[in-house]
Amino acid sequence: MNIKDIAKATGVSSATVSRVINNSGYVKEDTRKKIMKVINDNNYIPSAVARSLSIQDTASIGVIIPDIENPFFSSVIRGISDVAEKNNYNILFFGTNENQAIEHSYLKTVQGQRLKGVIITPISENDMETREYLIRLNNSGVPVVLVDRSIRDTEFDGVFIDNIQSAYEGVESLIHAGHKKIAIITGPETSKPGKERLLGYKKAMKAYKLDVLDKYIAQGDFKVEKAYKRTKELLELSMPPTAIFTSNNLTTLGCLKYLTEKNLEIGKDLSIMGFDDIETLKMIDFKLSVIDRDAKLQGQEAMKLLIERLENKNYQSEFKKIILPHSVILRGSEQIIKLI
Amino acid sequence: MNIKDIAKATGVSSATVSRVINNSGYVKEDTRKKIMKVINDNNYIPSAVARSLSIQDTASIGVIIPDIENPFFSSVIRGISDVAEKNNYNILFFGTNENQAIEHSYLKTVQGQRLKGVIITPISENDMETREYLIRLNNSGVPVVLVDRSIRDTEFDGVFIDNIQSAYEGVESLIHAGHKKIAIITGPETSKPGKERLLGYKKAMKAYKLDVLDKYIAQGDFKVEKAYKRTKELLELSMPPTAIFTSNNLTTLGCLKYLTEKNLEIGKDLSIMGFDDIETLKMIDFKLSVIDRDAKLQGQEAMKLLIERLENKNYQSEFKKIILPHSVILRGSEQIIKLI
Repeated sequence: MNIKDIAKATGVSSATVSRVINNSGYVKEDTRKKIMKVINDNNYIPSAVARSLSIQDTASIGVIIPDIENPFFSSVIRGISDVAEKNNYNILFFGTNENQAIEHSYLKTVQGQRLKGVIITPISENDMETREYLIRLNNSGVPVVLVDRSIRDTEFDGVFIDNIQSAYEGVESLIHAGHKKIAIITGPETSKPGKERLLGYKKAMKAYKLDVLDKYIAQGDFKVEKAYKRTKELLELSMPPTAIFTSNNLTTLGCLKYLTEKNLEIGKDLSIMGFDDIETLKMIDFKLSVIDRDAKLQGQEAMKLLIERLENKNYQSEFKKIILPHSVILRGSEQIIKLI
Repeated sequence: MNIKDIAKATGVSSATVSRVINNSGYVKEDTRKKIMKVINDNNYIPSAVARSLSIQDTASIGVIIPDIENPFFSSVIRGISDVAEKNNYNILFFGTNENQAIEHSYLKTVQGQRLKGVIITPISENDMETREYLIRLNNSGVPVVLVDRSIRDTEFDGVFIDNIQSAYEGVESLIHAGHKKIAIITGPETSKPGKERLLGYKKAMKAYKLDVLDKYIAQGDFKVEKAYKRTKELLELSMPPTAIFTSNNLTTLGCLKYLTEKNLEIGKDLSIMGFDDIETLKMIDFKLSVIDRDAKLQGQEAMKLLIERLENKNYQSEFKKIILPHSVILRGSEQIIKLI
């Protein structure tokens, strides 16, 4: 069956049938329906579609990230996708929701998906099973690139930032603003960047001869709800902190959520220094001071590293580790008027 | 090679080797490194890992969405993942970035991935090629569930909202607040919800005998940058609107970004009614009035429909179309003090 046959069966011109198939130009709704019925009844496949159905699959890359709802990872994905698109790779995403069992399950899936490479932000640097999967993938010719978090006792290509130094600078800004009672809401215990940001916090406190107090180190999990609870607990201490260093963007939001609900004011009741900027708040000019880095660039660089491995046949060359720059953006939320 | 052999080779106890493998309890860094070296050199795979490596793949579901950076879709994905996890399905995400060629490429990929089912928000209801792929998938026993956008001239299971009615109610709220000069920034021409929200806008204007003016209908694309430009153009008209109905969350943000840059005030210089709530702004109690719906629920219902198809063997039963409720949340941004 071809376009002429469809035209004959419906009593219209070939041009009209063609307009319906290509969805261009005006066709009366009744006529369109009649033509579609003939197409459906006869399982007719337009040749352009038929052609594309038979083309070889595009090469696919698996991307495994811990939190699909975190805008930081959305930007990383945007960066990976941009470079992938230009180089004709498809991207398959897997969101592990910071759950190691899900991560293992996905890594198992990846093995069966005939993927060309894998970009991953592993949940924990200490996970033997994830480590094993990644080494196996890499050894079997499916190169692995790490983003933002590394794996212990083994090496892969990867794109990171200096978490200790950047956290140090963030806390230093709070100290320069006059704070002495500075708390931190940390990341989950499994996260290497989370642990390193805590190290940076401690390093800055010690460098300025400030006490590192257990009660000011609140265990968070990089999510809104726990940060909200931790902020509440910190502010209910008999000697509450005057500033909080929030270890990621969602931690900052949980903290802001609590302050807003309690009608507390930034810079008056509490100061905040956040890790990672929050695009939405930037748009409405909300004065939040943050440690920032280019998440999109991080994704782009990761995909470039992967393509290098795949296309330059330098499979046996040394692993490359890229450390991207960070910056401290002071917008006022680090300041305080009334030091308690 | 087993744990005892590793213990012997490194001169430590089996318990120590076991602690390293399971990453539990304290082991001196030097000892850990020595043990890991033996493990790596001998390609030893702990039995728990070996076991899981040989287990049958979990069933995988493909999820194809147009914009991975839009928080609405992040919430849909969260809903899909929650139900998938409870029912032991893996999720593979594909972001098409509202680009039909990428959508086709992914649908081609999906055919080769041995997926059990597909959940998709198709970019355009008029795309013959996407339609063809989806029919083929469905006919070949890979059920398809639509989320938020449908496909013309064919049916699948799907979860939607009433876009015409909800947009109508949003614009009606602006009219009730006293506005007569109401503009809309629309979605892309390909998007069915975008077109239906425009229909709802027109319907409300006509119901209240207000003129539908071409100059107040600004073509957007559901993204920040174009919405920013359109807001600028609307406010530079010789007779600017007093209120803008923004057709999705990112459109609202683009509009807010322009107002913020120009130091314009909501409720004084311009009123806004947005489509879809913005979680981050809610947390800091930013007074934005919106049409809202439960995006997470939409994802959950979609995954439930798919599981029903897959597990109840009712493959030939009639397609189910779920229309979820919406609500109008008035927080003040629909109000105006100074009517121009």
